Amino acid sequence: MNDLKGKSIGIVCLSGGMDSCVTAAIAVREVLPAFLHVNYGQRTEERERRAFQQIADFYKAAPERRLCVDLDSLHRIGGSALTDEHIPVPKFERLEEGTPAILPVTYVPFRNTLILSLGVAWAEALKAERVYIGAVAEDSAGYPDCRPEYFEAFNRLIEVGSSLGGRLKVVTPLIRMKKADIVRKGMELGVPFQLTWSCYEDSEEACGRCDSCLRRIRAFHEAGLQDPIPYRG
Amino acid sequence: MNDLKGKSIGIVCLSGGMDSCVTAAIAVREVLPAFLHVNYGQRTEERERRAFQQIADFYKAAPERRLCVDLDSLHRIGGSALTDEHIPVPKFERLEEGTPAILPVTYVPFRNTLILSLGVAWAEALKAERVYIGAVAEDSAGYPDCRPEYFEAFNRLIEVGSSLGGRLKVVTPLIRMKKADIVRKGMELGVPFQLTWSCYEDSEEACGRCDSCLRRIRAFHEAGLQDPIPYRG
Repeated sequence: MNDLKGKSIGIVCLSGGMDSCVTAAIAVREVLPAFLHVNYGQRTEERERRAFQQIADFYKAAPERRLCVDLDSLHRIGGSALTDEHIPVPKFERLEEGTPAILPVTYVPFRNTLILSLGVAWAEALKAERVYIGAVAEDSAGYPDCRPEYFEAFNRLIEVGSSLGGRLKVVTPLIRMKKADIVRKGMELGVPFQLTWSCYEDSEEACGRCDSCLRRIRAFHEAGLQDPIPYRG
Repeated sequence: MNDLKGKSIGIVCLSGGMDSCVTAAIAVREVLPAFLHVNYGQRTEERERRAFQQIADFYKAAPERRLCVDLDSLHRIGGSALTDEHIPVPKFERLEEGTPAILPVTYVPFRNTLILSLGVAWAEALKAERVYIGAVAEDSAGYPDCRPEYFEAFNRLIEVGSSLGGRLKVVTPLIRMKKADIVRKGMELGVPFQLTWSCYEDSEEACGRCDSCLRRIRAFHEAGLQDPIPYRG
């Protein structure tokens, strides 16, 4: 990927989940990718980091184009089921279509801002012109930091607050897509879905029952395609 | 400080320098303070963290109202003389009054956004309504993330991107002040200047020659007051 001429560098936020992997597949056609992974103290970090490295291998990223940032002191902040082991991750949660009255317990305080800020800091050092993130507005009913307005506000922040000014932009290629269309797009682009990890549990096989697994299973079902990862029982 | 009724919690970003300490002195009159310190891989971290703890002791902050976040992987990003030991910190730098043509080598990529994002994440967990930061616009000729427009853009980001929405604000009590006025204000409020650390070097006595020392010395001189910290010969 890194031998093409004329491409600028782009930072790709890569959690290791399917949305970030489809985003990576889109990014590598447009930029020389530099992959960023953030450990914010999530329970599934070990499994996610393995997915990150395997996907970065798949896209032939050199070691200097991979950055894992440890921010595990966020664990001390807590406030989310994904980082605080005293808050259970919900099971058999119904996938709500409307806006929930309360914030999901899986919301991690200001997570996307932390990830994007690290992306911008690295972009400034590498003189990159794009930071890619696989946010999906469909999820935004629960997460304030997945909405298009949020990314507009973040780009304004970069414009006034970074040394690159308006030359650097956060881009969200999946923002208006349905989950099933993301699966179809990924298949078109040869995304290695078998390497991705979406489950809120840290195990060898996905649980198939948490909110994140349910969304993924439904997306592959609606797309009429086979999910290559193994699910428990 | 924590036994007064009716005050909401406020996060205070406290590097350990004089501006952040004067900001703390202002904050403790308005809120129950929770002190945040970020290690972004700066050379002076050990000395700064000592200043942080001593200032937090001075303001009687309980252990759960102190948070030190290690973000030393920023060191790997580099790009600044303050974090990259291959870039020398300038000595005898003239204090320029106008806008410099190039960004100072002491600029740390997107640092204030990283610090404020951590502050907002903690504020969400504590249900705090204010995040205080001691930015000074006078410095903004060189640092894009010290300008009033930057903080306006950040507050817009919180409004759309955090779970607290418009209830949470970043406040910058020093933003329009001259450095000498900050010294005077600090003296009025009984700020423990002897505990603060401004120098870009990590030693027992301040160098008295780096840009940060020069600004501090000039500020005390203009205020007609005595700086209580020791300087090397």
